[in-house]
Amino acid sequence: MAVQGNAVVGQSGGPTMVINASWAGTIEAARESAENKQIYGMLGGMEDLLNERFIDLFRENDELVEAIRYRPSSALGTCRLKPKANDLVRAMEVFRAHNIRYFFYIGGDDSQSACHALAELAKTQDWEMNIVGVPKTVDNDLVITDNCPGFGSAARFAASAVQYVACDAEAFGNCEVIEIMGRNAGWLTAATALGRREVRDAPHLVYPPEVIVDPDKFLADCHEAYDAHGYLVIAVSEGFAFADSGVATTSEKIDEFGHARLGGVAQALGDMVEEELGVRSRFDRLGNMQRCFAMAQSQVDLDEAYAVGDNAVRRACAGETDVMITIQRKGNEPFVFECETTSLASVTGQTRTLPEEFMNDEQNGVTEAFLEYAQPLTAPRVDMPAGLPQYPRLVKFPIGPKLEAYQR
Amino acid sequence: MAVQGNAVVGQSGGPTMVINASWAGTIEAARESAENKQIYGMLGGMEDLLNERFIDLFRENDELVEAIRYRPSSALGTCRLKPKANDLVRAMEVFRAHNIRYFFYIGGDDSQSACHALAELAKTQDWEMNIVGVPKTVDNDLVITDNCPGFGSAARFAASAVQYVACDAEAFGNCEVIEIMGRNAGWLTAATALGRREVRDAPHLVYPPEVIVDPDKFLADCHEAYDAHGYLVIAVSEGFAFADSGVATTSEKIDEFGHARLGGVAQALGDMVEEELGVRSRFDRLGNMQRCFAMAQSQVDLDEAYAVGDNAVRRACAGETDVMITIQRKGNEPFVFECETTSLASVTGQTRTLPEEFMNDEQNGVTEAFLEYAQPLTAPRVDMPAGLPQYPRLVKFPIGPKLEAYQR
Repeated sequence: MAVQGNAVVGQSGGPTMVINASWAGTIEAARESAENKQIYGMLGGMEDLLNERFIDLFRENDELVEAIRYRPSSALGTCRLKPKANDLVRAMEVFRAHNIRYFFYIGGDDSQSACHALAELAKTQDWEMNIVGVPKTVDNDLVITDNCPGFGSAARFAASAVQYVACDAEAFGNCEVIEIMGRNAGWLTAATALGRREVRDAPHLVYPPEVIVDPDKFLADCHEAYDAHGYLVIAVSEGFAFADSGVATTSEKIDEFGHARLGGVAQALGDMVEEELGVRSRFDRLGNMQRCFAMAQSQVDLDEAYAVGDNAVRRACAGETDVMITIQRKGNEPFVFECETTSLASVTGQTRTLPEEFMNDEQNGVTEAFLEYAQPLTAPRVDMPAGLPQYPRLVKFPIGPKLEAYQR
Repeated sequence: MAVQGNAVVGQSGGPTMVINASWAGTIEAARESAENKQIYGMLGGMEDLLNERFIDLFRENDELVEAIRYRPSSALGTCRLKPKANDLVRAMEVFRAHNIRYFFYIGGDDSQSACHALAELAKTQDWEMNIVGVPKTVDNDLVITDNCPGFGSAARFAASAVQYVACDAEAFGNCEVIEIMGRNAGWLTAATALGRREVRDAPHLVYPPEVIVDPDKFLADCHEAYDAHGYLVIAVSEGFAFADSGVATTSEKIDEFGHARLGGVAQALGDMVEEELGVRSRFDRLGNMQRCFAMAQSQVDLDEAYAVGDNAVRRACAGETDVMITIQRKGNEPFVFECETTSLASVTGQTRTLPEEFMNDEQNGVTEAFLEYAQPLTAPRVDMPAGLPQYPRLVKFPIGPKLEAYQR
């Protein structure tokens, strides 16, 4: 048994459709634990850990937590903060001031890095901390884990969207280009192929960011597919670029991490196809909907997300620290998984891109092996409520600060 | 009883999520009629009427028709053709050659105009035709009918999408601008408010194309809503423009009717808000998904769409011609409707814009009266299949041409 004390949970980065299932898992496990006297919620991720903006999650009632479990995007609030050395020192001061011994952070690679840095720092100080990272990302790009909670639902949305808009392209004999999130990893772009049953079905061409495409080969493939099927549907990652060219974007702005804000490649490719093939091209960006459109929630994804949150608390209470929860696949039909852990050092700073065996030889589509991998993750939610989406909000019982205000 | 002969059905213009329910309604009613010896499908709308590209719909089996009933976008194929005088003459020749006495065209205002022109011409010739227009448009902008099949499902999608992406904006404290279809009529933009339960819920500001907005008032409203709620969600029609300015668009292309291709206003407004309020702005375009994403199908919409197709055949067989089927609302809870007809002359060339009583005094949101009107139309489909969307295609048993090839 690990030390008794308070726990804190936070959510970080972009939304998924199941991120609150992870958070609900931590609360419910913490309620059952002897070690977690209270569980605090950080209102805006790590940023509000530093600002001591906490709420008391044990005071939120069970029914509310159960309802919010299905709400897309962080119910607590979120941020995109990469902590610096002095932020980590401040975090340790906050932990001591509030008797916090357990830290759970739901996020992608940046969040796991923050957890690891905190765990390393805690080890050098006389303050036992049990720090467990909870994986979350629609990009599915964390290493070691079989998949990342958040991906299955986004995959279900993207695969469905492509089938639906393809009906329009086929009716008109048009070209349709669909732009999918993923700067460096093409898991979600690849997932657009999950609804394809026949060669004439969409998507006919799939371009994750991992492939390097020659423009002449691209246009030749467009011609071939259009001539064969009388319409053409292309799924392309927002991070797609032709060999020796930059990424197309319609925005001149940069994001929080200094990267160009993506968006625009579908329109650029659509214009190119329209000019070359002489057929009308439309484009769609799945945008924030691919992370939030909870009508497309996957039950497997919801179950995984809850399990990694629940497991994080149980593992920490058993004394594990400086680890991330992983999903281990135990069976495909029906899909069965178990939660394990891996050291945070083993996952941080890495991106799991699509392996070669998941892309076809032509580098313009996915393999059966990919479909077998991804299909089980998209099982639909079994008890989707009817009616328009309606989610309650947390009451947010505040926990007062104990330190001087922090200036970064 | 009207004359015996063959019938032809076609689909025109952009997709809806329920357009094939109308088509299925025509086939099933035609099977039961004594007057319709055969029902032909036009493969690409009016364009393929002129080219005699027909298929025999009676040979398609019942189960297939039933499955395709739920497929979004025209299963037959579609076009965007405005027939000229010589096209109408050709159409009459085709009718005579194939003993066609019944003409059913599923579409919006342009399609109803084509029907009316054909009906007028038929009256001057010694060839009895029974021509009935079947309403279809996500824009909901046909006059006289209570609503247009296609609108309810699109409204359900748009209202849901806004609730979902709003969760992301709220988590980050961002601004989110959502761009909705509708060049001249703002029904669908207004429908984004259907999921709003409290003042702090999204969307906070709603701008259909009917309103004329002063930029200073717009920014003042943005400040006020953001300050009150800590996040800001704006729903805007793609046809939105500030007073004395053009429509923002990222495309330099024009569409089939000589209009600028719309798209870009959300990005432009987002940039404006970001600059003025100093908060990160994201934008989403609902794009083709708002017309095709059949996971959002409305049961009322499906039922209406089937009924207008079915009713068109029954009315025509009873001798009505030069009319469009309309929806008459008979009750709201539960929603009850009946089909009636109106003369095609009464609907063509007109656009039903949002009436004043559906927009608030501030011209930045909708009224309760609008919500009462639109809410019943968004009842979810009751038997949505699980799994990724999968739709069969028609076998398409061809009917050979009987005339010389046509050159427009």
